[in-house]
Amino acid sequence: MTFATLDALRDRCRALPAGDDMAAQAAAARQDTLTKPPGSLGRLEELAIWLARWQGRAAPRLDKVEILIFAGSHGVSAHGISAFPAAVTAQMVANFEAGGAAINQISKVAGASLKVHPLAVETLTNDFTQGPALSEAEFLDFAARGYEAVDADADLICLGEMGIGNTTVAAALCLGLYGGSGADWVGRGTGVDDAGLARKAEVIGRAVEVNRDRLDDPLTLLAALGGREFAAMFGAALACRIKPVPLLIDGFIATAALAPLAALNDDGLAHGICAHVSAEKAHAELLARLGKRPLLDLAMRLGEGSGAGIAINIARAAIACHNGMATFAEAGVSE
Amino acid sequence: MTFATLDALRDRCRALPAGDDMAAQAAAARQDTLTKPPGSLGRLEELAIWLARWQGRAAPRLDKVEILIFAGSHGVSAHGISAFPAAVTAQMVANFEAGGAAINQISKVAGASLKVHPLAVETLTNDFTQGPALSEAEFLDFAARGYEAVDADADLICLGEMGIGNTTVAAALCLGLYGGSGADWVGRGTGVDDAGLARKAEVIGRAVEVNRDRLDDPLTLLAALGGREFAAMFGAALACRIKPVPLLIDGFIATAALAPLAALNDDGLAHGICAHVSAEKAHAELLARLGKRPLLDLAMRLGEGSGAGIAINIARAAIACHNGMATFAEAGVSE
Repeated sequence: MTFATLDALRDRCRALPAGDDMAAQAAAARQDTLTKPPGSLGRLEELAIWLARWQGRAAPRLDKVEILIFAGSHGVSAHGISAFPAAVTAQMVANFEAGGAAINQISKVAGASLKVHPLAVETLTNDFTQGPALSEAEFLDFAARGYEAVDADADLICLGEMGIGNTTVAAALCLGLYGGSGADWVGRGTGVDDAGLARKAEVIGRAVEVNRDRLDDPLTLLAALGGREFAAMFGAALACRIKPVPLLIDGFIATAALAPLAALNDDGLAHGICAHVSAEKAHAELLARLGKRPLLDLAMRLGEGSGAGIAINIARAAIACHNGMATFAEAGVSE
Repeated sequence: MTFATLDALRDRCRALPAGDDMAAQAAAARQDTLTKPPGSLGRLEELAIWLARWQGRAAPRLDKVEILIFAGSHGVSAHGISAFPAAVTAQMVANFEAGGAAINQISKVAGASLKVHPLAVETLTNDFTQGPALSEAEFLDFAARGYEAVDADADLICLGEMGIGNTTVAAALCLGLYGGSGADWVGRGTGVDDAGLARKAEVIGRAVEVNRDRLDDPLTLLAALGGREFAAMFGAALACRIKPVPLLIDGFIATAALAPLAALNDDGLAHGICAHVSAEKAHAELLARLGKRPLLDLAMRLGEGSGAGIAINIARAAIACHNGMATFAEAGVSE
């Protein structure tokens, strides 16, 4: 799918399909017959019912799970806001392709296929302290690429990213969407020192100030303060809703990229579960703003879909219980 | 191993082997060379180093993972403190053996073998509101059975349980160990109503009052206020320390059964990680008393090793990253 204009994309975001209530209700009814006290599997029950709703089947499956990583490079990285140089984005893409990164190992343990989409990583976006990071046309192009990356046959999609400097970008998006100051949303990312942290907070504030005329519309804001991987994750999340495919959202950066969808439509992220809360401190606040309760809190702050990848096996356990457990009647257990 | 007397067992608990510092240090050093910001895998790094320490290998493995479930029946269940009748303990053992319970499905997803140990489930222990649940000889016998159930060749052991009435038992143990009132440690277990909850709090208080002369020594306390599956889990945890095998501890009941080991030896549970915090409300307080931070909070309250079983794949991801990731030098990524 391509979107010709921001208006067309915005209209699409405001009229989203609901999930499959019948499948969800059937799944919830089955949960109450299984050999366990009602509700005692907690969030595993929630996961099974959510998968049923967004797969449109009362007995959900996880045969085809895909982890999508979008990688982008950021003009703002010239400001010394990361512990690593911008060249590491392309180096890490090569590491993903060679199988050496954390997400490669996590994908294998999760039984998921990993698909890496480098988005012109050799070229920095515009420095958003000087004006918008992406033009409207660029934004629409990368959103469409994200949209097309989602296979409608997938049973579950995980969204992650790589991009040196992109905790700064995510923080600027949060500041633009929710207000406050740069210091409210800044964090250490890959591990900046105190001087780097102060510089980063200042850069975040400046980016929002420079782009202040572009903040009223969530899509214009995302084009101005985001970057290629943010646009692509946004497009991919929209695709998950429309096709539909249940969506596991990784950490701070992935959540920030999708926050504009919730800003356009209160129900816009209903098909997504936040896999974990990152150690990057603004993530907990962002999740609270979105009303999202993360599945995991493992003090991770790596990105590259790693938190979402870890959560896949929890979803596998949830559907294994849902589909495989005996009912009270089948097992002859007293209710 | 058998223990002839409580004194012999107590002596053993007070002189426990330390883990393998060299293996742990080598694992920590390797973590810092891998292609990720230092510390960014959070608790996955902690898990890899912990497995190295207690397996005694810098490159830990999870080829042989066992989930041990001990099942017992409780005299106190006659007091109407559970939403289910005592007969369900044996019925659920049959369900485990037939493959119909949650833990059967979770074990498969985790690649773990499940070993169920019913401990005279057709016979209730003594009602601990009348005196000790187990005699000293019975306690030593069931502790030895738990000890023997641990295979020294295992790479990881998960401890779980089944026993109608055993949240009441766990709460009594906590009250005996840490003080307070029955109301402080009581919870809804499998789902008692308000009247049941009040009855349960009263029963917990009475059990501790009746056994007040047996509270000074943690082993005497565990014999008096525990039950067969508690004694066996205690013995199994001790075996894990001595053989050694890293230990994943399930929920409220499993944690309560092992708390006396921490009471005897400050370092007694260093080889154990608490897999999750249960929705049973006293568990969070018990974990805090033990200084244990749970890996997961999934609002589960099922027991039967289910939380520990879910955590296995997180440990698998941790060692997959630890053993499989490229170093900065190998991948040519700038540090």
